[in-house]
Amino acid sequence: MTKNINVVLMGCGGVGKQLIQHIINSRSLHSKLGLHLRVVGVCDSTSFLVLPHVSDSKSEFNDSLLLEICRVKSSGFSLSTLSNASSGECQIFTKMESTDKILDTAKLLGRSTGLAFIDCSASSETIGILTKVVDFGCCAVLANKKPLTSSLDDYEKLFSHPRRIRHESTVGAGLPVIASINRILTSGDPIHRIIGSLSGTLGYVMSEVEGGKPLSEVVRAAKGLGYTEPDPRDDLGGMDVARKALILARLLGWRINLDSIKVESLYLDEMGPDKMSVEDFLSSGLPSLDDDIRKRFGVASSNGNVLRYICSIEGSSCQVGIKELPKDSPLGRLKGSDNVLEVYSRCYNELPLVIQGAGAGNDTTASGVLADILDLQDLFP
Amino acid sequence: MTKNINVVLMGCGGVGKQLIQHIINSRSLHSKLGLHLRVVGVCDSTSFLVLPHVSDSKSEFNDSLLLEICRVKSSGFSLSTLSNASSGECQIFTKMESTDKILDTAKLLGRSTGLAFIDCSASSETIGILTKVVDFGCCAVLANKKPLTSSLDDYEKLFSHPRRIRHESTVGAGLPVIASINRILTSGDPIHRIIGSLSGTLGYVMSEVEGGKPLSEVVRAAKGLGYTEPDPRDDLGGMDVARKALILARLLGWRINLDSIKVESLYLDEMGPDKMSVEDFLSSGLPSLDDDIRKRFGVASSNGNVLRYICSIEGSSCQVGIKELPKDSPLGRLKGSDNVLEVYSRCYNELPLVIQGAGAGNDTTASGVLADILDLQDLFP
Repeated sequence: MTKNINVVLMGCGGVGKQLIQHIINSRSLHSKLGLHLRVVGVCDSTSFLVLPHVSDSKSEFNDSLLLEICRVKSSGFSLSTLSNASSGECQIFTKMESTDKILDTAKLLGRSTGLAFIDCSASSETIGILTKVVDFGCCAVLANKKPLTSSLDDYEKLFSHPRRIRHESTVGAGLPVIASINRILTSGDPIHRIIGSLSGTLGYVMSEVEGGKPLSEVVRAAKGLGYTEPDPRDDLGGMDVARKALILARLLGWRINLDSIKVESLYLDEMGPDKMSVEDFLSSGLPSLDDDIRKRFGVASSNGNVLRYICSIEGSSCQVGIKELPKDSPLGRLKGSDNVLEVYSRCYNELPLVIQGAGAGNDTTASGVLADILDLQDLFP
Repeated sequence: MTKNINVVLMGCGGVGKQLIQHIINSRSLHSKLGLHLRVVGVCDSTSFLVLPHVSDSKSEFNDSLLLEICRVKSSGFSLSTLSNASSGECQIFTKMESTDKILDTAKLLGRSTGLAFIDCSASSETIGILTKVVDFGCCAVLANKKPLTSSLDDYEKLFSHPRRIRHESTVGAGLPVIASINRILTSGDPIHRIIGSLSGTLGYVMSEVEGGKPLSEVVRAAKGLGYTEPDPRDDLGGMDVARKALILARLLGWRINLDSIKVESLYLDEMGPDKMSVEDFLSSGLPSLDDDIRKRFGVASSNGNVLRYICSIEGSSCQVGIKELPKDSPLGRLKGSDNVLEVYSRCYNELPLVIQGAGAGNDTTASGVLADILDLQDLFP
């Protein structure tokens, strides 16, 4: 007998589209495991598409409709433009109507057949829906960091039923970071220190600067290669790493907020997006920082150390920034864009548990989301 | 409301006793998670102790009885000697009666309240019981490699309900190896290569020999430090690593047996336990191998490489033995007794997923078992 895992997909950007591909490609594998991923709804920032009869377990977004959704989104259109193409197969609701309709669906399926909401968006608006659907008995899987890094109150509401929430891909993409930390914690092995390099972009930048290139040149090249956000300051400011650090700290039980984290930005306040265009930042702002960072690397090197942009959670401090580390440590040896995490606990005391590998990219991020979904299977009837 | 996770503990050696300690120490943590680990039975190779009324959810092996069991076993006695001390609290059955009584308990609880059998023994005899109790709806958690490395038929019987079986601590102790590989596989990311150093003892030996010491001296010192089995040939022969390799290969879906694995022993056939005493092996057998291994390290070093004793699963070959590896790779950089695993898949293609850390010891092994038990919670009503 095949068990349906019912899902609503939220967000159809790079990760969301890749997830749809992974779901389709894994159909036969999951069928062997006695499982079927049944998509009952899909939403983006403009619309919510849902089956006309969600309770009819035979009906679903079939693969050709899912692929059409991917095509529409790849062409830069919103889900609402799909209406003519697939009339009848699903109902379309506007942004205005969406929330009520989503909650109706959650109420209907949450406690009966089970339903998981898969947040692959980058929106800070999904938290309102997620906390509500969890209350209706639904599960949530997140690749989106925002709902986990807003207020502590929201966080605790979301985790009122912790087994229903998975969010592996919010830190280190598909790397088994959250799952491994959760295993250590539930076994009663207290974690007293986590340090990690959790930004592929900043890892790459620090590696290349260490190799002797000026910071400004490295960042320009990284932008050219598509390694950075369109505005590289989104990476260099460190807020993305800070969100990951907050997620890990909260996982350890720290009741803190984003503003409790000390974040070192790689650029100066006066070079911020509100004061300088991206072009000016790259051509005149950044180059003025080259000398300083080169000197810092020189000092570290003369101590036999290297510089890494890391997050560190230890004692009562959660920090994000450049740190001098022994050349001969997992973080010190790191090259390129790999992520690495060192976890210290009673069992991993002198030498840490180390998890290392690709920590970015739609493929691995979506794989992490899919593994999370499958891991919820025992919560479905 | 607190959910009972009912367990029968099999094996009260080092890992089993440590597990009991971990269970007791984690009581308040698990209570916060709404969970209670309820021990309904304990067995060793001579006896089975079980509650007189297993269905009475209020009755259990209380912590003082569990600690007494640890004391009795630490003093070298069998469980059967406990009878006078705790008459009434539990029933004691001899080895002869045990199997039937265990199966009765499994039948009674398996499909009603749920029951997990925790195999911390080192016995090859538990497989018969485990395959049967799984059929009765029970779960199984194994630190014992033997049931997973016997016949393919037994293996497939055991995994007829894969979600009910956990065995993290059979490879790399508590390191999140099995959980991580399972995540990758269920997400549809095919693994095409695994290499790893999965013996702390052999890792330590290779490290020290690389540092310039003769093999025989290193092994004698390791034995003195308690790093090896009483007969070091149990480590040097490679069969323990071969069992771990088989467990990983079968996890990838390979339908092979232990005898399909090519195993390189670090000692010669004529030095086997049937031909030479441990003392003779250490004083005259081993030293005759010093030159050869020193030369092999020399050749590797002149190629800029190092030698590691690894398992390798790739293509259609599963092998265990010494391999020449780049100095600058996760395995090449390995020092001391840490375990390390490199996993190559579509997502981790050029650079592997790397998991590294302490891969031996009762503390981490028992922690891995406890994490496995907690991970079964959704299968309990």
